[in-house]
Formats: sequence, C-alpha cells, structure tokens
Amino acid sequence: MKAAFEIIDEAIINDLIDNASYGTLALSLDERPYSVPMNFVQIEGTIYFHGAKKGRKMQMLEKNPYASFSIVESHALIPSYFSSDAGLACPATHFFKSVIIDGSVEMVETSKEKGKVLSALMQKLQPEGKYRPFSDKDYEKSLNATAVYKLKPTERRAKFKFGQHLDSERFEMIITHLEARGEPIDLQTVAMMRAFKEEKTI
Amino acid sequence: MKAAFEIIDEAIINDLIDNASYGTLALSLDERPYSVPMNFVQIEGTIYFHGAKKGRKMQMLEKNPYASFSIVESHALIPSYFSSDAGLACPATHFFKSVIIDGSVEMVETSKEKGKVLSALMQKLQPEGKYRPFSDKDYEKSLNATAVYKLKPTERRAKFKFGQHLDSERFEMIITHLEARGEPIDLQTVAMMRAFKEEKTI
Repeated sequence: MKAAFEIIDEAIINDLIDNASYGTLALSLDERPYSVPMNFVQIEGTIYFHGAKKGRKMQMLEKNPYASFSIVESHALIPSYFSSDAGLACPATHFFKSVIIDGSVEMVETSKEKGKVLSALMQKLQPEGKYRPFSDKDYEKSLNATAVYKLKPTERRAKFKFGQHLDSERFEMIITHLEARGEPIDLQTVAMMRAFKEEKTI
Repeated sequence: MKAAFEIIDEAIINDLIDNASYGTLALSLDERPYSVPMNFVQIEGTIYFHGAKKGRKMQMLEKNPYASFSIVESHALIPSYFSSDAGLACPATHFFKSVIIDGSVEMVETSKEKGKVLSALMQKLQPEGKYRPFSDKDYEKSLNATAVYKLKPTERRAKFKFGQHLDSERFEMIITHLEARGEPIDLQTVAMMRAFKEEKTI
C-alpha cells in the first residue's frame, strides 16, 4: 500500500530530481548526524557530487559510507482559511514535492569518469555550454584536486503534497484562494494540484 | 579564523533562519543516516518541529537524540563565463546562504508549551492571523495527537557564498551579467553580493 502522498512513478520522481540544482546530504559518524547542502547531478539513477578532497564529509565517508539525500521543491504555503471556514489553525499547510534517497557513497577515482560526471553536471546547470570539454588537458590539475563521489540508491521515497487527500469542496476552495492570491508560485501550485489530483490516495 | 564564506553575525544568521519556511533534518540510527524536510519555527535560538507521534523520526529520536538541521536560501546559478573569459568550466558556481545547526532533540510534553510553539509557527507562516488561538478548547484533541519537539543547538555554522573571494574585476563582471540576465533571482543576488562584499574573508 502506498503511504499518504507517496509517488511511485519513476519518471515523475526522476523529473523532480533532474530539475533540482541542490539537495541536502545527511551523513553520520558515531551516531552524530551531519547535514550539508550540495549541488549534484543524477546519471542513470545514481547521484553524483563533487567537492574538496579534504574536510568533514570526506573524513566521515571514509569511516561510514551510508548516506541519505533529500531534495525538496517548495510550493505554496496554504493558510488555514484557504480550505476551511471553521476558524481552526490545523488545516494550515505547505504544498511541496520531496524525495529522500538512501544508499551508500563510493568515490569516483579516474579522471575520465570524473570528467564524465562534471560534464553531466555542467550540462544540467549550464545547458548553454560556452566552456571547453573536460577532455582538455587544462583540466588535468583541477580534476586531480577534485573529489567526485556517488550515492547509489538502495531506496527512494517520494512524497508530493498537493491536497490529494481533500474532498472536492476543500480542494476547489484552495484553488480559488490560490488563484485570487495569484503569485507565480500560487499558479504553479494550482497546476500541480490539478496534475496530481488523479494520484489520490488514502 | 573564519572559514571561507563563513558568516558569524548572529542577527544575520537568525534572519536567514526566520525567513525560511523549511529545512532538512538529519537523524541517524545504527550509523544509517536519515534526512527529511521539515517546516519549523525558531524561538529564542531553539528550533521547533511538529508532526505525527509515531513513525520513523520518532523511533530514531527515542534511541538517538542527536540531529543536524540545514537551511538553504538558494540564489542565482553563476555560469562559468559570468566571471571568466578563459573558457574553462571551473568558475561555474551557485550562490546561496546556508546554515547548519547541530544539537540534540527533546520532546515538548505539555499542551501549554505545544500551543506556544504552534502559535509561533502560525505567526511565522500565516502572519495575517484568521484562526482561533491555541488556548481554545477545540484544539485539545489535536494538541494531544501532535508531537512537538525541539532542537537545542550546540553549534551553528553559516556560509553565505556571494563571490566575496573574487577580485573586483570578476566580481563586477558577474554583477554585469546578472543585471543583463535580469531575472528577479538575479537582481536579488546582486543585492546580496553588494551587501556581503564587506564580509570578504578567506
């Protein structure tokens, strides 16, 4: 059984991941968790990061490769009175898409594979190009100095919250309020509400 | 010595925290990290969350109260050619504000304190009001059914990356490009670059 707001369509989950420029990586050592925001790129279901060869992340990963990576696409805040006239605060909520990716981290060792990863990252974040390919010998030093590592997912759990659990009356009431407020994020949220209404669960 | 891009001004860090509607909470059990996005409110330096009384977070926190909470305010992506004519990909970057808050989590037990926390959360996310105060007896059941917990920071590390390390020529080159691209996020980023230039470190 799907959990509330759970999304299982792999293509929809991959779209969320590929449209995000960063997520938050959680590591742990001696049961002390550490969270840090990271840019990343997904290639064939694996999440790749890059950064300094030294530092807290590398020290932790050497001893414990397990990691959890979260990506959020934040949508509209929904005030309580958008879905209820009863005057209680409880219906107040925040619509969002999120995915949590658990797995373990491995280092990418060769300059060739590092170049492939950084090319994919540039393709994602700078699709207009305007830089020399990573095969250029001018990158040799930088590639050597850069740590590239990958998170191979053992589990992905996506949750999209867009009022799918509400009855039609409350659902349409929120849409009316969002359209009246009319900020770009509100109109994007309305589009998402309509797109994911069909995914209604519980 | 301050680390690169580190911000130590408490008021500036608190502004970042108070302006964010959510962050990512990292927990760990048996060295398996878990990351999950959460809405939150800060009261007098302590971070408060609320949610279901059962579930993975509660099970983990019962056994290991240590946590790390990250907040990001994402600013403009900076293509490599915004700061260099050399044609290399390396200068490509992402400007942002972030803070990582480490500490341990404790449960909030009384309905009175829970009501105080949820009032502060509503004040933050729904400042226009339009709901009955949590002292109303109609909230009794909901307050009993809701878990409220707090992260008392033992350490906060904030990093604001807005090109503070660049020489004036590259810095101004980025501003010229951002102004030409002219999206709202680009103009906000220019304002942040100018505001934090004085914080130049490394």
